[in-house]
Amino acid sequence: MAKMTLEALRAFVAREFPQMADEFHIEAIAPMRVRVSMVPGDKHLRPGATVSGPTIFGLADCSVYFALLAMIGPEALAVTTSGSIDFMRKPLVGQDLVADVTLLKVGRVLAVGDVAVHSRGSEDLVARATFTYSIPPKV
Amino acid sequence: MAKMTLEALRAFVAREFPQMADEFHIEAIAPMRVRVSMVPGDKHLRPGATVSGPTIFGLADCSVYFALLAMIGPEALAVTTSGSIDFMRKPLVGQDLVADVTLLKVGRVLAVGDVAVHSRGSEDLVARATFTYSIPPKV
Amino acid sequence: MAKMTLEALRAFVAREFPQMADEFHIEAIAPMRVRVSMVPGDKHLRPGATVSGPTIFGLADCSVYFALLAMIGPEALAVTTSGSIDFMRKPLVGQDLVADVTLLKVGRVLAVGDVAVHSRGSEDLVARATFTYSIPPKV
Amino acid sequence: MAKMTLEALRAFVAREFPQMADEFHIEAIAPMRVRVSMVPGDKHLRPGATVSGPTIFGLADCSVYFALLAMIGPEALAVTTSGSIDFMRKPLVGQDLVADVTLLKVGRVLAVGDVAVHSRGSEDLVARATFTYSIPPKV
Repeated sequence: MAKMTLEALRAFVAREFPQMADEFHIEAIAPMRVRVSMVPGDKHLRPGATVSGPTIFGLADCSVYFALLAMIGPEALAVTTSGSIDFMRKPLVGQDLVADVTLLKVGRVLAVGDVAVHSRGSEDLVARATFTYSIPPKV
Repeated sequence: MAKMTLEALRAFVAREFPQMADEFHIEAIAPMRVRVSMVPGDKHLRPGATVSGPTIFGLADCSVYFALLAMIGPEALAVTTSGSIDFMRKPLVGQDLVADVTLLKVGRVLAVGDVAVHSRGSEDLVARATFTYSIPPKV
Repeated sequence: MAKMTLEALRAFVAREFPQMADEFHIEAIAPMRVRVSMVPGDKHLRPGATVSGPTIFGLADCSVYFALLAMIGPEALAVTTSGSIDFMRKPLVGQDLVADVTLLKVGRVLAVGDVAVHSRGSEDLVARATFTYSIPPKV
Repeated sequence: MAKMTLEALRAFVAREFPQMADEFHIEAIAPMRVRVSMVPGDKHLRPGATVSGPTIFGLADCSVYFALLAMIGPEALAVTTSGSIDFMRKPLVGQDLVADVTLLKVGRVLAVGDVAVHSRGSEDLVARATFTYSIPPKV
């Protein structure tokens, strides 16, 4: 069961992480899942109008964080301990990027999330990533 | 043997990737190696004045790219195919980040680079990452 | 479209990789997908009757290889260039391990496959892995 | 400071993990470091007399485990939570494999180790890997 609703999650992110809230739009949540999108801006582009790898990594990382927040609640200050990403295809030019997260494990001290990134309107994967988060003990 | 000098590499990056050149400072190159630093700005920070994971990933990714450019020359348009990163410690507040790249392999179609990131003035690793680049065939 | 049928794939593996064929059972193939299982033996176990990490890694790696063989045909000699794996839960004691592969990309020079490993009869993931294979040029 | 001497570590591994002790030879330890070697046997080989990827992964994984045991002592039952490996070159035929581990972090709940694998007598890397271990709380 998620501990936060979509509205509560959006409000929390807007208040605590305004930079993320400007860049990333949380579209939907479900138990162990979240969908997040972004509109790539000029600062995210590389020659050839392609979106930079670190931008896609950042979308994926934050999306897992949002999914985890929704599950464990906003008081927990989880931190990324590792991430691995494969870049498969260039995103479609001029399209939003959409990240679909599935949390594979939310344990006592570690959580693992899987992310599939594609361009809006395309089934083809732009990137796939896995992130591990460390969950600090409750005080 | 590197195909570009430090000056040629800096000039190429400034011309072709002005956003990277603004953020990242190429400090030194040697065969199969490069050292790159960055001064984290407000947009790179997370609550607690820590540098965001995607910022560190971006520094590491671009640093490998610079090392590869120096070795294979500027005409090649290598692209990141995968990256994996472990975050070990928070960076020191207010210090530059320094990335030391060692290229482990520069093959005909693939290159692999290893990156160690630490805060200026500290030996402790902030992050370690490995990136694979695909090298397109010469036309 | 796959280039090999299930029967042809099994026959090829039995002939060329008899050690793999002894350990791994190819249960089913579909375009870009394969399901492979193994019965862990004593040599695969660690104290506590759990299956060793390298055993699970080996199952995942070979399963991606089988999926790739089915798609590109047996003449190609693809080699693993990288793999990353997250271990989520101990396998159920005394159960087969089942690996479900989805190839995310089969390009001209690189292929990427995603693997989910679980114990027979359980939905819970034991491990998730991603492998990249390099595909040598046709002679 | 390491908690185990080379002799104590070898004795512990021989008693608790006889299969590992048969395969892997702990050559040397130092604080945060260990060198482990193995003589590849027929069961580790693939066509072309090359050593299989999972064999190299297994050597790397166990070597990190040995380094961690030496540092935190034999009572701790650390488990691998993730590993990522890049394969760079085929090992030299007929040579031992040598794994050099550097522990990058030994924290309260997580440890991270880096491994470089090469063939005896060669400087060229066969593989590079990073492993994360979860350290269970003391009872």
